[in-house]
Amino acid sequence: MPSQIRDTSRLCIHSITHQPWPIETTIEQLSARSVGGITLWRQALEGHSVSAIAAHIRVAGLKVISLCRGGFFPATDISQQLRAIDDNRKAIDQAAELGAPLLVLVPGADPSQSLYTSRQQIAEGIAAILPHAAACDVRLGIEALHPMYADTRSAINTLRQANELCAQFNSPSLGVVVDVYHLWWDPDLQVEIQRAGDAQRIFAYHICDWKSPTTDLLNDRGLMGEGCIPLRQIRSWIESSGFDGFHEVEIFSNHYWAMEQEVFLERIIQAYLDHS
Amino acid sequence: MPSQIRDTSRLCIHSITHQPWPIETTIEQLSARSVGGITLWRQALEGHSVSAIAAHIRVAGLKVISLCRGGFFPATDISQQLRAIDDNRKAIDQAAELGAPLLVLVPGADPSQSLYTSRQQIAEGIAAILPHAAACDVRLGIEALHPMYADTRSAINTLRQANELCAQFNSPSLGVVVDVYHLWWDPDLQVEIQRAGDAQRIFAYHICDWKSPTTDLLNDRGLMGEGCIPLRQIRSWIESSGFDGFHEVEIFSNHYWAMEQEVFLERIIQAYLDHS
Repeated sequence: MPSQIRDTSRLCIHSITHQPWPIETTIEQLSARSVGGITLWRQALEGHSVSAIAAHIRVAGLKVISLCRGGFFPATDISQQLRAIDDNRKAIDQAAELGAPLLVLVPGADPSQSLYTSRQQIAEGIAAILPHAAACDVRLGIEALHPMYADTRSAINTLRQANELCAQFNSPSLGVVVDVYHLWWDPDLQVEIQRAGDAQRIFAYHICDWKSPTTDLLNDRGLMGEGCIPLRQIRSWIESSGFDGFHEVEIFSNHYWAMEQEVFLERIIQAYLDHS
Repeated sequence: MPSQIRDTSRLCIHSITHQPWPIETTIEQLSARSVGGITLWRQALEGHSVSAIAAHIRVAGLKVISLCRGGFFPATDISQQLRAIDDNRKAIDQAAELGAPLLVLVPGADPSQSLYTSRQQIAEGIAAILPHAAACDVRLGIEALHPMYADTRSAINTLRQANELCAQFNSPSLGVVVDVYHLWWDPDLQVEIQRAGDAQRIFAYHICDWKSPTTDLLNDRGLMGEGCIPLRQIRSWIESSGFDGFHEVEIFSNHYWAMEQEVFLERIIQAYLDHS
């Protein structure tokens, strides 16, 4: 087992985790509690000047870990595929302006076509945007999503698939995002984390927990320690593979979004220190 | 693509699919519509004489395809593990009395221990009951369940895992159940179906559909054709692998359970002929 986490310097919180707060409040609150990093969701940027938010984060002493999210490449309609590629280029520009070193790609899927076709379109989409990402010095991280999202959110559902996609491109600008919520059940997880680490391809590490029972397919994620994901074990695999980046708390939860957000943030920090 | 299905002679319906009906009604209704087979869930047997139900099914001209369900081996508590083994032996006896050639095993999982431990206990449980199953001429079918059930229902979440467990025992009494709902997303599905077929280990084939969106983790399965599972393609893989058994409709659905069950049965038959 890895050593206990002693402070919040490598803790990063996703803006969507505190969805009820305006982004300025999230920045101030994380800063006030010495959280080390923030990952921004694009919807938090809407109606804001990206450079002003970047400046605010810098002044607050936070590090921008990544921008969420690009991807969603598959579509039966070619014009929609092209719009997705265009939108991903814009997301890369936003990441560069924010100073985010990473754009997280949620691959996408279209239930009206085969997973095989969706996977081909994901590869095509990545091929179309990878040169722009490299030119902007923004890395792309493929996030494999839980198989319960294979219909509309991701035709890439295991870390092995994400690793194989990366191997196909073999670019230093393309790696994987390891999210415990999506991957904890996979008997190959340790092997595939090591494989990604050996190739220097683990670009991000996302944590939360799987509640038992889980009552909603999307918005019932748990706080660390509240569910059955072996967080310490997975962190030991991640660290053994050479990853030394941030631990990003990404929680979608109707329950926690309804809570007073300052209380929720305190609980996140305690759960992070006790269980991650 | 495989040939169109022309009749209901190889259609089997799970008793739980028509949960609102008493088991006698289900038997009569399936028989009246020339459905070929029935799979019985153990709760439908409660309060009934098993031999009387077996006789009713025989007279109605239906074939008993399997009994659902044994399994649920993992537990942190040793006495609970032993109770599970004992209960599985009873289920094997029930299957023999019913004339069911197969007992479906839902492996189980316990969220308060690791998946690794749960998997060991599943193997131990199977080892404990396999001789009794063989002596009773009842086969055991390991059903890999969707990863969204890895917390409490199954630590076996891919067909590869189920195949590997079978290979470990290498017994003609132990095989796999292929359920499209649980496995459709898996990029290895075709390969693992072929592997199971080559080893003569596909003991059952369960169908339904994955609705998009799916609104409930347990009870929102769709009728064939209503979702995104490539049923014809998977049937072609199953048939290529040598399987020529029944196509079993297993639908848990609050929506369909609330419907007039005769209408639902007609829809099942139409969906089976049109989309399976």
